[in-house]
Amino acid sequence: MPAAPPAPLDLAFADLDVGTRYKLMSGLVIPRPIALVTSVGRDGVTNAAPFSYFNVFSEDPPLVVLGLQARADGGPKDTARNIRATGEFVVNLVDEALAEGMNVCAVDFPPEEGEIDAAGLTLAPSSSVAPARIEEAPVAFECKVNVVLAFNAKRDLVVGEVLHVHARPGIVEPGTFRVDTDAYRPIGRFFGNFYSYQRELFQLKRETHAEWRERRGGEG
Amino acid sequence: MPAAPPAPLDLAFADLDVGTRYKLMSGLVIPRPIALVTSVGRDGVTNAAPFSYFNVFSEDPPLVVLGLQARADGGPKDTARNIRATGEFVVNLVDEALAEGMNVCAVDFPPEEGEIDAAGLTLAPSSSVAPARIEEAPVAFECKVNVVLAFNAKRDLVVGEVLHVHARPGIVEPGTFRVDTDAYRPIGRFFGNFYSYQRELFQLKRETHAEWRERRGGEG
Repeated sequence: MPAAPPAPLDLAFADLDVGTRYKLMSGLVIPRPIALVTSVGRDGVTNAAPFSYFNVFSEDPPLVVLGLQARADGGPKDTARNIRATGEFVVNLVDEALAEGMNVCAVDFPPEEGEIDAAGLTLAPSSSVAPARIEEAPVAFECKVNVVLAFNAKRDLVVGEVLHVHARPGIVEPGTFRVDTDAYRPIGRFFGNFYSYQRELFQLKRETHAEWRERRGGEG
Repeated sequence: MPAAPPAPLDLAFADLDVGTRYKLMSGLVIPRPIALVTSVGRDGVTNAAPFSYFNVFSEDPPLVVLGLQARADGGPKDTARNIRATGEFVVNLVDEALAEGMNVCAVDFPPEEGEIDAAGLTLAPSSSVAPARIEEAPVAFECKVNVVLAFNAKRDLVVGEVLHVHARPGIVEPGTFRVDTDAYRPIGRFFGNFYSYQRELFQLKRETHAEWRERRGGEG
């Protein structure tokens, strides 16, 4: 008997458990940018934890959004508590060189053991917020909270406004603000243990209607 | 005289114009996932427009966020108006094969000329929302609005709840819900005319504290 042809996936989320929803959302919305977020608690201890439920959403006002989940492994829980307490955080972006250090920051260290030291990373003072930034990060955005949407006890959406940007020499061209992707080498988040290199680019020209008509006319 | 060494970028956002903020945020927060959003107006016309100010943010509740900007080029403006009017939309994800069609959907077509036909794309009925999904998309998430944050007249953050998921055969393994990235071949958004292939992956094992200690002990 021949095998049945593969069927499309067609599922109502109301019928799925939370773990399956997580697998489908995290597995299919890829690649995601990665924020290694530094925040500081009332005790003065700086915390660093990676998030890929993160993106930029507006330049006027300049907004980023972070999805924070209270989890047993500590990191995001500390970040959520610190951001709620202080209203400030730093988004450190992650390049190939920072990938290993970022992954150490995801380990569930006990409170007396700092993930930043363990990862071999260095803190550098920020310009406009209390939490330090990570010196080794190619890019850092200092942010203050605009609004927090608390969907339930375990899930916050933090909307942050960018106050200040840092970038390593060579990444942003002075004057034009053009980004050199070879100098930057960011990585993308997939799912599970998987990440993606961003070394192979392609171009698609954004066209006006007049340009599109002209190109189509030339083809027809 | 030797050239001065390149200096790090270190800028307060308050000192930057909106165009420069846009270049820095869109240029440095990369790669971004792409949503080709379908929505339907009160006139029954289906609109499709690509957005990379987009991500998944939670699985419980299952949330995505879209950043919509009213622009002169029409597409996002139509999407924002439709979503406000109907409270529904579909996030169609974009693979290598859909890239060209997605780019045509970004053209500023006049109202009487549909970008979906022009892009050679086909609409398929959704299961739980009025807007159709795009048949050629590898994955589609049907969504209803949870809340809209209107930061000003031109900028909405739409928080959508996922109601239903579709995926092409072969992308999600039945039973395990494991994603086959070779069958999927999503693309990432960079900036300007640039996009990134997602063909080269690497792995980093997420460790518990015990695993990290053991590995470090073995190295020491």
